[in-house]
Order: sequence, then C-alpha cells, then structure tokens
Amino acid sequence: MTLFDGPPVDEVAAPATRVRLTVAYDGRGFRGFAAQPGVRTVAGTLADAISRVLRRPVELVAAGRTDAGVHAWGQVVHFDLPAEAPLDVVALHRSLVKQLAPEIVVRRAGPAPAGFDARHSALARRYRYHVVNRELPDPFLAATHWHVATPLDVRAMQAAADPLIGEHDFSSFCRRPPSPADGPPPSLVRRVHEAEWRALADGVLRLDISASSFCHQMVRSIVGTLAEVGSGKRRAGDMTWVLARRDRSVAAQPAPPHGLCLWEVVYPPEEDDQVVTALGGASSLS
Amino acid sequence: MTLFDGPPVDEVAAPATRVRLTVAYDGRGFRGFAAQPGVRTVAGTLADAISRVLRRPVELVAAGRTDAGVHAWGQVVHFDLPAEAPLDVVALHRSLVKQLAPEIVVRRAGPAPAGFDARHSALARRYRYHVVNRELPDPFLAATHWHVATPLDVRAMQAAADPLIGEHDFSSFCRRPPSPADGPPPSLVRRVHEAEWRALADGVLRLDISASSFCHQMVRSIVGTLAEVGSGKRRAGDMTWVLARRDRSVAAQPAPPHGLCLWEVVYPPEEDDQVVTALGGASSLS
Repeated sequence: MTLFDGPPVDEVAAPATRVRLTVAYDGRGFRGFAAQPGVRTVAGTLADAISRVLRRPVELVAAGRTDAGVHAWGQVVHFDLPAEAPLDVVALHRSLVKQLAPEIVVRRAGPAPAGFDARHSALARRYRYHVVNRELPDPFLAATHWHVATPLDVRAMQAAADPLIGEHDFSSFCRRPPSPADGPPPSLVRRVHEAEWRALADGVLRLDISASSFCHQMVRSIVGTLAEVGSGKRRAGDMTWVLARRDRSVAAQPAPPHGLCLWEVVYPPEEDDQVVTALGGASSLS
Repeated sequence: MTLFDGPPVDEVAAPATRVRLTVAYDGRGFRGFAAQPGVRTVAGTLADAISRVLRRPVELVAAGRTDAGVHAWGQVVHFDLPAEAPLDVVALHRSLVKQLAPEIVVRRAGPAPAGFDARHSALARRYRYHVVNRELPDPFLAATHWHVATPLDVRAMQAAADPLIGEHDFSSFCRRPPSPADGPPPSLVRRVHEAEWRALADGVLRLDISASSFCHQMVRSIVGTLAEVGSGKRRAGDMTWVLARRDRSVAAQPAPPHGLCLWEVVYPPEEDDQVVTALGGASSLS
C-alpha cells in the first residue's frame, strides 16, 4: 500500500539520456512529420522503429514539423531515455537504417550535448525549394522538383525575395493557427535571414531560405507568390505590398509540397554535434 | 464475293506515315517496356494513350526492350499510320505529355525520316548505370541509383571494364534466350564501343556503356561483376577470364534494375531527327 501525496514516481525529474538524430526522408509516402493516430507519419514511423529496438516507448521532439509531402535532408529530432536504460547508439543507428531506409534515412545519431533541445535550441531552420523550369516535365525530378512550364525570370524573383529579409509579420504567407480561448492569437512575426535563388543547370532553380522559424505553409506561400512574379503575372515590387497587407488572400496559392525540403537546422556551436556514430553521410539534392 | 489469290487488302504495302517518339520514363511502376496482356508495361501504356488520341490502334517498335524497373531517358519508338489518317503531331505530343507525365514523358515527336526504323536503324544503344557508393543510402537517389555501402575502387572497375571493348561473345553476361526449334541458337556476340566509369560528386559513380545492341540483362550482369571487382571480391584481371568462359555461372548476380537507364539511341545522321515538335527537353540524371 502506498498513500502518497507527491507526484507519481515516473514524473519525478530523473537524470535522462537525451539522444539526437539527424534524419532525411522522402515525404511523399507520409501525411507529414507530426505523429497522428491512425495515419502514416514520419514521426510515427520513426518512433515505432526506435521503440522496437529499445523495447520502450519514446516521444520525439523535432526542429520542424514538415507538412504532408514535404521532404527533409537535415531534420533534427531528440528523445529521452531513463538514465538507467541501456543504449548502444551505433547499434540503434544501424538498426534504424536497416528498418527504414531508403524512405527514411537516419544520417547521424548520438547523445545530445548538455541542454540541447531539437526544437528550442534551434537558431534557424533552412529550407530549400526546387523548381524545374522547362517546357517538359522530367520523370527523374518529379519527386523533388515543382515543374513550372512557363519561363520564369529569376532576377525578378530575386528582387521580389529581397524585401523578405529581416523581421516581419508574415500573416500574408501563413495559415493562421487557431487562437487559444484565453489568450492573444499566436504571433506570425518571424525573422528571415536568407532568401536566395540560384539558377542551376538545365532549368533547375533553387531557393535557399532560412529564418528563426517558419509559420505554417510560409515557404510554399512565398514560393507560389514569387513564381507569379517570375512568370510576369505580378511585378517584383508587389511583394512589399503583399507583406504589408497581412492578409493571406493577397498572396498566391502555396507551391506544391514535393518541391520543399527541410535542408538543415542551425544550433549554437556549443550545442552542435559532438559525438555521433560512425555512419557517414553526404549531401544530396542540389 | 472475292475469289482472290493475292494477300488480303490490308497487308498490301500502302504508303504509311511513320511517327517517331523519344521517350523518358521512370521504370519503377512498370513490368518492363514490352507490351504483355494483363500487365502494366511502358509500351502498353504508351500505345493506349496514342490510340486514345488518334482513335485507332497502333503498334510500337522500340530501340530497346528495357526490363522491369529499368528507366529510360532516350528510348526511341516508332509506329505507322495509314497515309490518309489525319495527324497533328504537335497536338499528339501535347496530349501524350498531358496524359502520361511525369511517369512517362514523350520528349520529342515527329514524322520519321525516310527509311527510319527505331529498332533496325539503330547503330548503337547507350546505357547509364548509376551507383551511389556511400555507407548510408539516400532517399532522393533511391529511385535511380544502386546503393553500395562497401567502398568501391573505381580504377579497378575501369581496368576490369576495358577488356569488354570490341566484339565478343557475351554468353557469360546474358540470359540465354530459348533456341528456336528449327535453327541455331541466337548469337550472343555483341560489339561494345564504350565502357567508362566516372566518379561524380559525393560517391556517385556512373558507367556509360554503349554497344551495337545488348543481350538480355547484359549491362546489369556486367555491373554486378564489376562491383565485385570494385569491392575487392574479384581481381580486375578476372573479367577477361569470365568473358572467355562463355558461362553465365561464373559472372556475378545482375545489379538491380533501378540503377539502369537507357540513355540514348544512336542513328545514322541521315536518319536522325529532322522535324520534331516544338516542346523542349533537357538532360537529367547525371
């Protein structure tokens, strides 16, 4: 018999082992990152695989909750284990690769540095959006590139992207989240550090965009609007006006999810990878 | 009533319009190129789409009958129409792209030059085989690259590929076709013009191999055997011995189909594309 006023034993803060993973995935087969009951998601699939190896449930915290169909090359997640739980991180990593590759590839795995939190420690998220701007689509780019047949003016798209840099209210480019019953609506102010188009070979265009964080559908709404500038449907100068309006109806439809990829997450140097397993990765999708 | 000793009317050679298409496809969703009843094939899918547009059945002749799962960037096919049949080749091309892309993309369409036959006019077929040689697989290369985790020695693979150049009996690398009841077994002698490995960025290796024609599973068997040289399981000098043995059991298992792509088909200059529709293409998969 226990008659006990304190919190249940398993809620007492105990020293835990925090594990950090860097994960790439092909988002097409998933209804987004965040776990939802009865739906195939990246987090659900990954957590199930980890739980099978460690024989205990785990809860994942991620740097970015990507939407259905969105890819990642450098998603970062963490989970906690009780300090006494046995952990062979190399064996865990190999098993996750064996279970999940090539659809989900855990690129790095290791104990997290002190104080690390995949979501809250992140200084910036960097996304890439890939467009293939040719009259004809390409079967080998269809999974990862938005095919736009109308010729796009990349210099106009860059001119339109420049005013996004800095701190702004991005309401015009975001799906507004529901307001809590007892508080102010969530802020859609974000700080964009970089928004740069590159014209690669053979009509492939790439936008590198990084920000402190992004609100929902922000990159895709920005790309959809920039593509209208590129095709001549809007003028480059309109972007400043769209941004100032704080009204989603003045922006274009979001560009499709399969062109988008969470490329990397930036952490302070002292919280960056210190110990990782031996499996090596390399860049892809450029 | 006709009492008529000659061939039936529809077998009398009539002037016909021959149409030539250059076709790219992602082979993963198909049970190979060649049409088979009750099975989803590239030729079956393409012929159905053409028949829907032209409202008459067509029969496709192709330069290369790729196996299940094998891709193409530059497959070439032709079909014939009665001379009196109306043909708007630009409208046909646009409709085929609309119906079939991005899984099958008709890159070019046009009337064939005089005497052209997609299969018999071909001077050479050129295939590319893509390997990604890294410890970890990559979700964005999984559709088109064979992932080999063991480090491969590309110079050894090139040394082993060199003796393939020239005219040889490739029995060691071919699935032998059934012999006809009343004739000699089909020859497996082929002339290889080029067999060149290139090391691209980030562990991507590519074999360009061209020949007058290839027998069944020839490129994949060669790549499988070269990969055993690359990993140190065989010596480079073994290839000459394997070739001379004319015995399939001494070669390695064929490399998987998804790394293989029919890259281009070479025709004599006078039979090469003369008139093509306006839709533009570009290279991919390098």
